[in-house]
Amino acid sequence: MRTIKNAFYAQSGGVTAVINASACGVLETARKHKTRIGKVYAGRNGIIGALTEDLIDTSLEPPAAIRALKHTPGGAFGSCRYKLKGVDKHRAEFERLIEVFKAHNIGYFFYNGGGDSADTCLKVSQLSETMGFPIQAIHVPKTVDNDLPITDQCPGFGSVAKYIAVSIREAALDVMSMSRTSTKVFILEVMGRHAGWIAAAAGLAGEKPGDPPHVILFPEVAFDEEKFLMKVKESVEKYDFCVIAVSEGVRNAEGKFLAEAGTRDAFGHTQLGGVAVEIAQLVKSKLGYKYHYAVADYLQRSARHIASKVDVEQAYAVGKAAVEFAIKGHNAVMPAIVRTSNQPYRWKIGMADLSDVANHEKMLPRNYITKDGYGITAACRRYLAPLIVGEAYPPYKKGLPEYVTLKNKPVKKKLKTEFKL
Amino acid sequence: MRTIKNAFYAQSGGVTAVINASACGVLETARKHKTRIGKVYAGRNGIIGALTEDLIDTSLEPPAAIRALKHTPGGAFGSCRYKLKGVDKHRAEFERLIEVFKAHNIGYFFYNGGGDSADTCLKVSQLSETMGFPIQAIHVPKTVDNDLPITDQCPGFGSVAKYIAVSIREAALDVMSMSRTSTKVFILEVMGRHAGWIAAAAGLAGEKPGDPPHVILFPEVAFDEEKFLMKVKESVEKYDFCVIAVSEGVRNAEGKFLAEAGTRDAFGHTQLGGVAVEIAQLVKSKLGYKYHYAVADYLQRSARHIASKVDVEQAYAVGKAAVEFAIKGHNAVMPAIVRTSNQPYRWKIGMADLSDVANHEKMLPRNYITKDGYGITAACRRYLAPLIVGEAYPPYKKGLPEYVTLKNKPVKKKLKTEFKL
Repeated sequence: MRTIKNAFYAQSGGVTAVINASACGVLETARKHKTRIGKVYAGRNGIIGALTEDLIDTSLEPPAAIRALKHTPGGAFGSCRYKLKGVDKHRAEFERLIEVFKAHNIGYFFYNGGGDSADTCLKVSQLSETMGFPIQAIHVPKTVDNDLPITDQCPGFGSVAKYIAVSIREAALDVMSMSRTSTKVFILEVMGRHAGWIAAAAGLAGEKPGDPPHVILFPEVAFDEEKFLMKVKESVEKYDFCVIAVSEGVRNAEGKFLAEAGTRDAFGHTQLGGVAVEIAQLVKSKLGYKYHYAVADYLQRSARHIASKVDVEQAYAVGKAAVEFAIKGHNAVMPAIVRTSNQPYRWKIGMADLSDVANHEKMLPRNYITKDGYGITAACRRYLAPLIVGEAYPPYKKGLPEYVTLKNKPVKKKLKTEFKL
Repeated sequence: MRTIKNAFYAQSGGVTAVINASACGVLETARKHKTRIGKVYAGRNGIIGALTEDLIDTSLEPPAAIRALKHTPGGAFGSCRYKLKGVDKHRAEFERLIEVFKAHNIGYFFYNGGGDSADTCLKVSQLSETMGFPIQAIHVPKTVDNDLPITDQCPGFGSVAKYIAVSIREAALDVMSMSRTSTKVFILEVMGRHAGWIAAAAGLAGEKPGDPPHVILFPEVAFDEEKFLMKVKESVEKYDFCVIAVSEGVRNAEGKFLAEAGTRDAFGHTQLGGVAVEIAQLVKSKLGYKYHYAVADYLQRSARHIASKVDVEQAYAVGKAAVEFAIKGHNAVMPAIVRTSNQPYRWKIGMADLSDVANHEKMLPRNYITKDGYGITAACRRYLAPLIVGEAYPPYKKGLPEYVTLKNKPVKKKLKTEFKL
């Protein structure tokens, strides 16, 4: 008789509007395979929950609550920014993981995160080899940054992309109305420290030449102040207004973040605002235009109310596939989204080796950015467009979305020892 | 036989997610009364369109385009920030208006705006008396600030309120997930220079004691740094995180805007960020918590994708009623929303005298703010809650809302003279 092992699931890194949809996929699928997988214990605050034996018994949540995860943003079990240091450097962490996993009969490890988390997952997957502890570790992809390799998109990205495209289309209509006597320039700051995927998504808002956004500032393109100002001036002279999407990660020619470059302040004070303010001040001081700026920040990655239906489905699918991979005996793999057709858009789930995923960043290809560096190309549009299709509205009660809060009851601790992080 | 007069309609001040729904109400209703109202000419960019004889012939727009205004944010004909100075001070402006109105046989004046625009509308309504030109001027209320008197709410406000309540509920779930190892404090900056209506709407996101937002900063409550920091600290110690909604209009005890108070910078440099940055820096420097902040800016007032259904209906209704008032022979009035029941929420359209509306601001009553100054009371909740009920989603195509752009064909000019603004 096969021993039934329990599973560990945790969320890691910045959360998204659909990471809980992946959790839903993991939990619902595990519940369908009770002869293979026992209980699913969720780590409270990611891997920290495993290290501190702070486990949540998901079996105590009713099916309706698990189902509601599919439309609830944020990380239902708490997330963390915590990177395992590697067996050679910090053996104690791995010994502790094994101790906790043994105590709770855990044989499956599902880790839901981005690049750093894939690295953590890879290290856990090697515990069998490195420390003789049998475990199957499957990574569940998630990141709004869309910078994981192999998978066609990263669940979480499609919804941010939709939020940004919708928001900038709406704000552009506002600015256009106001430009005669008031605001000429509107700036929307979006996430993306290293890769310009989210900034690129703003480009979807415009369909014809001249449609806003008129300028996109990518982290991949060194900021050229003079050229930028000329572009803004041209737009205002032609359309009477200018809409700009700026990635938080925009850098100058020396590779310094614009938000930290201190170009504005002769006293060398630390940047206090962020890149939107920086750009706004530049436009005001050099061109004299009235501006408004918005900083989407967490709103963009938690906006489940306007999530992409495709994204929600893919987020669920990678969670489901992770459990199916585990049941089939796989280790050190990640379900990846494979695009099989562009028109009509079709996709399926493939399997990626975790060693090919961890610590590789997928940047925006240069041919996705127009020659002048301020827009997206047709190739980029072909890639992005299907990812924002469809609405997947959450249920509402009295005008507000009904998001679930789980009970998150702790599993009784079995170890006497505490672990210092 | 009665002469059929044409009508003038224009949008004024900051636009909203539903000002075009009011335009739709005006235009559809006028089209139903062709024996009484001829063509409706829209002013391009508000009253400026009248002064410069820059009129748009709305009769050239097909019914489907007019219908689509109901779900399109921004101001379809362009808005303006331009206040008529009064007959005594600037007679030339009024003479010009009469000249343009006469040339185009305009007998009805519909002005869609807030407090300042009500003042403009009132002045136009007095043209019969002051300058012997027969006109009926009806004001169509609109402002996200919700500060017009008499009307129970101002169309545009309900949708901003919904956007803010939904957004902060979502962002709070994000911060809650991250707080163990990362962000402890999240700040959302919202509009409202003078009145805290929008900030108050953030309070709808929380339903039980302890629910986020934990702190709301109103323009009506003088900012007390020490007390505020203690409140944030308490929240972080109790819940591990703190969510703050801050009105752009928050002031210190001396009545100075916090965003301009320069409390942060000993060199007295002009504030570059805005109040969210100010608050964020304060929290970081005094309490050491990691923060994130978002600035909703134009996103909040253009977010037609998450507009309140009640708000859309009321915006349409005031447009419709304005035309009906005109047909009944009224002048110098404004359709007002009258709440006839709280539970179930019921409302009807009443009529307000424009002289009671212009230049009066309706502030947030003190009994809508909790004793400690950081939350909303049950009375406030009773007032606000019905205004965000219902979703009125726009149609989508390929993942993006389909907003209409009108042809906005100009009416042929009849005057030889130009008018300098």
